[in-house]
Amino acid sequence: MMKKVFSNKNRLNHTENKQAQREIYLDNAATTRIDERVLEAMIPYFRKDYGNASSSHAFGKQAKRALEQSRSVIAHAINAEKDEIYFTSGGTESNNLALKGLFYGNYPKKNHIITTKIEHASVINVCEWLKTQGAKITYLDVDSEGFIDLKQLEKAITKKTIVVSIIHANNEIGTIQDLKAIGEICSKKGVLFHTDACQSFTKSFIDVKQQKIDLMTLNAHKIHGPKGVGAIYIKKGIEAHVVPVQHGGGHENGIRSGTENVAGVVGFARAVEISNSLDVQRMSELRDKLIKGVLKLPGIRLNGPKEGKKRLCNNANFIFKELDGEAVGEFLQSYGVYTSTGSACLSHSQGPNHVLIALGCSLDDVGNAIRITLSKYTAEKEIDFVLEMLPKVIKRIKEIESVFKTKK
Amino acid sequence: MMKKVFSNKNRLNHTENKQAQREIYLDNAATTRIDERVLEAMIPYFRKDYGNASSSHAFGKQAKRALEQSRSVIAHAINAEKDEIYFTSGGTESNNLALKGLFYGNYPKKNHIITTKIEHASVINVCEWLKTQGAKITYLDVDSEGFIDLKQLEKAITKKTIVVSIIHANNEIGTIQDLKAIGEICSKKGVLFHTDACQSFTKSFIDVKQQKIDLMTLNAHKIHGPKGVGAIYIKKGIEAHVVPVQHGGGHENGIRSGTENVAGVVGFARAVEISNSLDVQRMSELRDKLIKGVLKLPGIRLNGPKEGKKRLCNNANFIFKELDGEAVGEFLQSYGVYTSTGSACLSHSQGPNHVLIALGCSLDDVGNAIRITLSKYTAEKEIDFVLEMLPKVIKRIKEIESVFKTKK
Repeated sequence: MMKKVFSNKNRLNHTENKQAQREIYLDNAATTRIDERVLEAMIPYFRKDYGNASSSHAFGKQAKRALEQSRSVIAHAINAEKDEIYFTSGGTESNNLALKGLFYGNYPKKNHIITTKIEHASVINVCEWLKTQGAKITYLDVDSEGFIDLKQLEKAITKKTIVVSIIHANNEIGTIQDLKAIGEICSKKGVLFHTDACQSFTKSFIDVKQQKIDLMTLNAHKIHGPKGVGAIYIKKGIEAHVVPVQHGGGHENGIRSGTENVAGVVGFARAVEISNSLDVQRMSELRDKLIKGVLKLPGIRLNGPKEGKKRLCNNANFIFKELDGEAVGEFLQSYGVYTSTGSACLSHSQGPNHVLIALGCSLDDVGNAIRITLSKYTAEKEIDFVLEMLPKVIKRIKEIESVFKTKK
Repeated sequence: MMKKVFSNKNRLNHTENKQAQREIYLDNAATTRIDERVLEAMIPYFRKDYGNASSSHAFGKQAKRALEQSRSVIAHAINAEKDEIYFTSGGTESNNLALKGLFYGNYPKKNHIITTKIEHASVINVCEWLKTQGAKITYLDVDSEGFIDLKQLEKAITKKTIVVSIIHANNEIGTIQDLKAIGEICSKKGVLFHTDACQSFTKSFIDVKQQKIDLMTLNAHKIHGPKGVGAIYIKKGIEAHVVPVQHGGGHENGIRSGTENVAGVVGFARAVEISNSLDVQRMSELRDKLIKGVLKLPGIRLNGPKEGKKRLCNNANFIFKELDGEAVGEFLQSYGVYTSTGSACLSHSQGPNHVLIALGCSLDDVGNAIRITLSKYTAEKEIDFVLEMLPKVIKRIKEIESVFKTKK
């Protein structure tokens, strides 16, 4: 996959290219720029109200109040109750807590977990580890657009099934699963339903009651909040069957020990408050403009859903047939455009490989994939710039490739 | 323990007391005020260099560089190698990772863990959970000053022993264990040695090579860094026997998955860089002044080591015989002085109970304990103020108590 056709010499370098001064960040599925209002909300909790939220004096209570107000904000955003939200260090921890917590809380009576082939590594690698502890895992297939088959899901549920864990919006290809339909099947069959909503939170409709969600993973840094903060929603009553992954002083109602990251949590809540449907609408429009423009070029295929409503508002993922995706990414970077390429070798946690392979892509195709993910800060002129540069990038790569072929 | 002798009416309230405007924070074992230079170092990683350290583009590499520079700073501070440091979300996570990681990496061949009766909850509660997974735990006794018995430790080690986990400086009573003596015993007996150094890091001598430490827990928010960041030192070679507690994308060399909290880590490293022995010296002197002054008052006993060098530079812990410690804490608070009292009922993670009980204190004594912990920001006039106020507080409490007794 790492073709390395292009040495450093062949790359357009930054000094060569005047355009490089402009930086166009289009890797927002990896992480986002913190919103200035988020940082502003956090700073008092670094500087002034730095108390430990578990201290019983007034200084601690001040921190505790901020923590609880933030909890209410997160709860309100997904139509949950305040005490159904537990803060963690991020999406990975929340996914670990959901699956390990439920496994240890139900084993050996039950030992079966159903998930999909396109989950984030923090679900798949937890499942693989739980196999060593006695778990049975079913990985559901997805169709060519990344959707699960509801009938296959229903059939997979057994008396031993603890939980069905299905990612809401896929981080690589943006496929938005039908949470309500999945929630109804799980509810009918009497199994729990967990969803990893790190990518979709504030970007796609979530209502834990209406969609019958029992546990949900959320995080801050994908929505212009700080890194190192996340949350898990656990429906009331279910927490009794969740064994903590992080034991200690009994913070977060005994579910997650560790001194509360007050500034981080406050920033998380502020990011949620700031989020709005207008930003989502704008991102969708720019995404559509990008996809439409890119697909006009020859030999390019879109990964993930074709229908806009079923695709995350900020996601586009392409295969550049017969062009090394990594080279395309590198050339775009030389123009100051940051995207995510198929190279899992370099980018250990961002590799799209297993997701694209689950769609039926060949290994070659996976190597030629590029993910372009927008944020509320993405400007139309940035998308225009990418659309203007791409034909030049493709032309240049083909020229260099032909030189290499001639040499052979 | 919650005597509740004093209703809200009997407390000096804030408006009543002009002095309350001054805030004297003496609960630095719970958490510390962030250093302005730490915040300054963090802010660029919120605002500008917000890339995901695992992204392979230049934006990610910039974040990665900051992460790796920070790792070097932490490593250098304990005489470890850079790749022996793994970042986590804090001390609690590091303790979980050390003990669960080693347990799952050695079980069922070995299943025995040795620790003490005065560990932090994040060690004790991990051990209690591991019992349900097949672990055998030995809790070592401590003497009246909180020191373990090296002979008891040596005798406790068996062929099944995986690790000895002993807190460096105790968070409640400040007892500094002799790491080198413990490390030598562990090394001689061929078992691993883990120490929780959250309280002692940058305050007491640490050299992982000289003290033969195999794993060590560190965190940021006790040393004027941000909450939500910590680290674990794992001696090279041992990581192969540490099973991750947080599975996922394989960050931190596969030991700890989850998007790296770059700003937090940078702040952590800056806090370490800023730390210095002059601050430690100053804290020790103020601590000694405080202890000397308080012990002049009748009916007060010091918990923990009598000898200054064996006690953490910022720790004092007293039992106010025949006075409700919580009331003393409340009255001090009415003068704007924040300390930590024995009430674990309110303060779930800060309860000194099990530590004081291990020293041989009665339950009544535990309820009458107050912990006063200094920081580099503690001013001499603040200690003077506490010493001036304490006799007044004691007098007032005794007056109110006598009214209650008369009523009876």
